[in-house]
Amino acid sequence: MIKDLLPHIESELQRQIARLDQPRMGQFHDMLTYHMGWTGEGAGPEATGKRIRPLMVLLVSAACGSDWRSALPAAAAVELVHNFSLVHDDIEDNSDKRRGRTTVWKKWGIPQGTNSGDGLFVLSNLAIMDLEKNHPAPIVLKAATILHQACLDLTRGQFLDISYEKRDDLIVEDYWSMISGKTGALLAACCHIGALLGGADEGRQEAYRSFGRHLGLAFQVQDDILGIWGDEALTGKSTASDLLEGKKSLPVLYGLEKNGKFAARWSKGPIQPGEVRELARVLETESARSASQAAARRETDVALASLQEADPQGEAGESLKTLADKLLNRGA
Amino acid sequence: MIKDLLPHIESELQRQIARLDQPRMGQFHDMLTYHMGWTGEGAGPEATGKRIRPLMVLLVSAACGSDWRSALPAAAAVELVHNFSLVHDDIEDNSDKRRGRTTVWKKWGIPQGTNSGDGLFVLSNLAIMDLEKNHPAPIVLKAATILHQACLDLTRGQFLDISYEKRDDLIVEDYWSMISGKTGALLAACCHIGALLGGADEGRQEAYRSFGRHLGLAFQVQDDILGIWGDEALTGKSTASDLLEGKKSLPVLYGLEKNGKFAARWSKGPIQPGEVRELARVLETESARSASQAAARRETDVALASLQEADPQGEAGESLKTLADKLLNRGA
Repeated sequence: MIKDLLPHIESELQRQIARLDQPRMGQFHDMLTYHMGWTGEGAGPEATGKRIRPLMVLLVSAACGSDWRSALPAAAAVELVHNFSLVHDDIEDNSDKRRGRTTVWKKWGIPQGTNSGDGLFVLSNLAIMDLEKNHPAPIVLKAATILHQACLDLTRGQFLDISYEKRDDLIVEDYWSMISGKTGALLAACCHIGALLGGADEGRQEAYRSFGRHLGLAFQVQDDILGIWGDEALTGKSTASDLLEGKKSLPVLYGLEKNGKFAARWSKGPIQPGEVRELARVLETESARSASQAAARRETDVALASLQEADPQGEAGESLKTLADKLLNRGA
Repeated sequence: MIKDLLPHIESELQRQIARLDQPRMGQFHDMLTYHMGWTGEGAGPEATGKRIRPLMVLLVSAACGSDWRSALPAAAAVELVHNFSLVHDDIEDNSDKRRGRTTVWKKWGIPQGTNSGDGLFVLSNLAIMDLEKNHPAPIVLKAATILHQACLDLTRGQFLDISYEKRDDLIVEDYWSMISGKTGALLAACCHIGALLGGADEGRQEAYRSFGRHLGLAFQVQDDILGIWGDEALTGKSTASDLLEGKKSLPVLYGLEKNGKFAARWSKGPIQPGEVRELARVLETESARSASQAAARRETDVALASLQEADPQGEAGESLKTLADKLLNRGA
């Protein structure tokens, strides 16, 4: 089912972004289609991302027994929000590359990069209004409010992420506040909106929401584990290791709380490529890996229990479970 | 009446921004209250701006015979949009100062500056949803859609403004496309939303919308005239003259189209303080001032004719006319 949905998601996204395909706006439209992975150098399936968020909206909506087609504008809206946040993230993190391609700000400058992110954000606001064609106005308002609340959480998480860079007193709790906003909020909103549009009652909406939130958190923690102990990270040849980037990920915060050999080395300044393998080993002996794995397992368990409570139906329900399993078992 | 409304606008804005006044979010909240002119160095009435846009929403709504209180969330929303665009504008224009105070990005860096602008934008989205307390859901959706469309026009105008910096083939028509987005769209939306919430029929909504749009355009052209021939601009001592900033304002574009002495000098590179007075004189002899004044007069006439067609009622109607006169007669 996922394979069938993906082309519909792309065409809805293209339709929404085509609002900018107008006289004089050619280059502005180009910036957005480039970022979305459709045009320019390196365009193609590898460049678009996996469209997890719109898939969640559509699958949840269908698993509640509704026609996923009527949720397409919301699916586009959440993906546009996600991409707005990526474009601004890349500016805020000073990142030159995204999915192997030059980032928008690096290609067109910070002014156009900032404005392109704003454009994607505005388009998401307009996309969600399009639900009005197939849903009563109070439902559309509810969906929009859920999305806007998630966006507020995104900016909260982003504020914390940026401010953490300069802080050396962070604890594990700080990590959860940050990723709740950066990763949990939008996935929670995707499932919540899907359930709302699918006609689920409030209890089931909450169960889906909880599923999305904890799926997001579990996924992020796994990503953090792979960022230090994944195959790519351990080669230490590129910037593939989060240790080289100085990223204050969950394992690093566990290590810092331990205040042992890892913390002593970390406090002395940037990690060098030659140290990556040994430092990952030290961090592992100081239990940061097992503690992170336990956290990932805990979040995964909550996500799956919530999904069971939500009780997704039919083919979409099966696809949703498959997608969740795929996202949650990445071999960390 | 305007003096009575202003404190209500401020407290509604504060209420909306207080969504960020939460544990761990103190500094994020501070960034926004600083930008709004309420806290930090130089805070006070001089730092808040004139709140023209929310005043328009409330006055139009009241001049249509409705209680302005029920339009307060929309008034806050348009001002939050305006301020989001200012925060990002300052990044995009590399401006250190706004209303005499250090800009947000200059004070907290580009990453937090970008995210603060995003935060204001999200808060505007949430603010307009608050209309639901006093208005039926379809009206709230209509108001939100009008606002989002204006935001799309804002990003369009901003795209043009940034791309114009590098172009030397601009014509007067390019100017109108740019300021229609940057200045006309949001003021049009303010009056349109005010009329919608005030219960005006579609014809009257359109008349108010046209009033807002042309008021915005007239105001901008007058601002451009003052930017070259205003008292401050002519002293040439600071960067008060648009000529020093290299701004492609309407008089400059008239001058470039003339392709005479002014255009010859302009093409040779940045204008120096010592040349400002003479160059303003050249531009005047080449009819750029009178052509700009004619354009301002034309826009003013359309604005006032639209206002007359809209036929604002009562004390609010009088205040609206007074405000329009004040904005349109700045002695350019």
